[in-house]
Amino acid sequence: MLKANLNSINLFIVGDCAHMAKLVLGIDLGGTDCKFGLMDETGHIVRKAKYPTRGELGPQGVLENMAENARKLMGDDVMRAVGLGVPGVMSSARGFVYEAPNLPGWVNVPVGAMLSQALGLSVAVNNDANAAAYGEFWAGAGRAVETMIMFTLGTGVGGGIILDGKLYTGPDDTAAELGHMCVKYDGPRCGCGAFGCLEALASATAVRRMVMEALAAGRSTRIEIPDNELELGAKAVADAAMAGDLLAREIFDTVGQALGAAVGTVINIFNPDMIVFGGAMANAGELIFDPVRREARAHSFAKPFSRVQIVRADLGEDAGIVGAAGLALKAERG
Amino acid sequence: MLKANLNSINLFIVGDCAHMAKLVLGIDLGGTDCKFGLMDETGHIVRKAKYPTRGELGPQGVLENMAENARKLMGDDVMRAVGLGVPGVMSSARGFVYEAPNLPGWVNVPVGAMLSQALGLSVAVNNDANAAAYGEFWAGAGRAVETMIMFTLGTGVGGGIILDGKLYTGPDDTAAELGHMCVKYDGPRCGCGAFGCLEALASATAVRRMVMEALAAGRSTRIEIPDNELELGAKAVADAAMAGDLLAREIFDTVGQALGAAVGTVINIFNPDMIVFGGAMANAGELIFDPVRREARAHSFAKPFSRVQIVRADLGEDAGIVGAAGLALKAERG
Repeated sequence: MLKANLNSINLFIVGDCAHMAKLVLGIDLGGTDCKFGLMDETGHIVRKAKYPTRGELGPQGVLENMAENARKLMGDDVMRAVGLGVPGVMSSARGFVYEAPNLPGWVNVPVGAMLSQALGLSVAVNNDANAAAYGEFWAGAGRAVETMIMFTLGTGVGGGIILDGKLYTGPDDTAAELGHMCVKYDGPRCGCGAFGCLEALASATAVRRMVMEALAAGRSTRIEIPDNELELGAKAVADAAMAGDLLAREIFDTVGQALGAAVGTVINIFNPDMIVFGGAMANAGELIFDPVRREARAHSFAKPFSRVQIVRADLGEDAGIVGAAGLALKAERG
Repeated sequence: MLKANLNSINLFIVGDCAHMAKLVLGIDLGGTDCKFGLMDETGHIVRKAKYPTRGELGPQGVLENMAENARKLMGDDVMRAVGLGVPGVMSSARGFVYEAPNLPGWVNVPVGAMLSQALGLSVAVNNDANAAAYGEFWAGAGRAVETMIMFTLGTGVGGGIILDGKLYTGPDDTAAELGHMCVKYDGPRCGCGAFGCLEALASATAVRRMVMEALAAGRSTRIEIPDNELELGAKAVADAAMAGDLLAREIFDTVGQALGAAVGTVINIFNPDMIVFGGAMANAGELIFDPVRREARAHSFAKPFSRVQIVRADLGEDAGIVGAAGLALKAERG
């Protein structure tokens, strides 16, 4: 398995520039932190780093800061390409970000041109969820398959689609919003305003809401509720479910039903080789995977179900940097 | 608009074979009828015909019968390619049908090889719903777009997916089962065994079931119920809804909600240029399209919703023959 290794040594042979192995830099810009990974052309990470994003600096400041940290990490290595994942709506062809809701002031920013100028290198810009999916496809759980769908179960539910070896993003780069598949049109309201989205039933936020609603309705539970209820994570609910808590089990049943319906739908739509789950919720392991596989089987046809592998992501937090780098390499190769 | 014309005259100039325009034959095999269309390389139909399938003859007999009728229609025209749509599970690459539930004895039939041998021409075999979607894309409602999703609302709900100008069928050719997207995981049971499939809420069969359940529950309605309730079609319910019948309106509301949720999901997944509705239910016009557009908007993000056109199919019953021919032409061009 290709795993991130913070302490790995750069073993490239130093020599004539034309024969020197070139590296790829992947950057994963988040609202809080910005991650950097320097890797070879197979996605093997040779150095990585994480710095605060400092969103308060605005786009220009964030990108200057990013370029400086990138230069530090690259040092004297010969670079082949730079890739960047951004949490927003964009044109990846133009490297242009229309909007990034978690980054103050990020409206209509020509990110690709700005970072490229600062670094003197061409930069491929992609949506962060798409980059993470491509990372798992290129060098993670999906590296042996051609058609792979990824769900990232975090605060929200993200998605990514790889068809016949290519990232599918749609004509406006807004495709693959798998968290906003409707699995119960009369279901709870989602943050996006719609009813019954997968995200409203299977995200960490949804789990917290279900716990709080049950408590408000007078249900008793062994789930440990922190003083600040916003800190209640899926792990506390998972732990209580493992310990036999009824409410926690009911909640994971709902999560499993919603996810299973979405996974079954994705199987019937795409006939994929593999479905990969990333994000903190996927760490609940068989508590999630058991009901998801059972429900997905009930919601899909036998032939495509018999093909699909439903697995956990391999790269963890590195999926974003690896995928951003992989997409940069792909863009450079044309 | 490219429309079928039963009486159109074959205007191709007869001359030296090498310079003579070649025709393409599209065949759409159904459980009851088999349709044939001879067309030019733009999908313009020059002659067409329909014969009973005679499923009782079994695969060999059905294909011999088909070849004979194809020869009659082709006459002395110079043929370029033959395409066939089959209602079943198959490998289109191998022209091999694993199973066609509505055709007795169709299990593991090398359809492509058999028909090709009988006609002395290469034959491209595809799933009938995929062929119909390709027909609308190539020469129908979607001819000006690149990314198009089709729903066919009939006895069941079929689907077809065209991405970046190419038919997407998945590694087992089982993709695009859009009738079996789950839109309400605690919804009614579908013919496929799963709960809350689009088909269980928005097909003609679902409409009939909802009427019958309401009558059994003592509801009154102006919907005209035929002696044989299996003959109750969506049209009778649509007529009653137009005339203000409350039950009929409620049923169309449910259909609209389910379809809108599925369409919104498809918009969020694919970011398509166009969504096309075919089949008898689409004839209910704005009674269907109004709630579908409203619900689809509520279930999708603004940017992809602003791109997508939601329209009725153009080719009607001819979509299958046109698409089978178009796919044959595409296969021949490689």
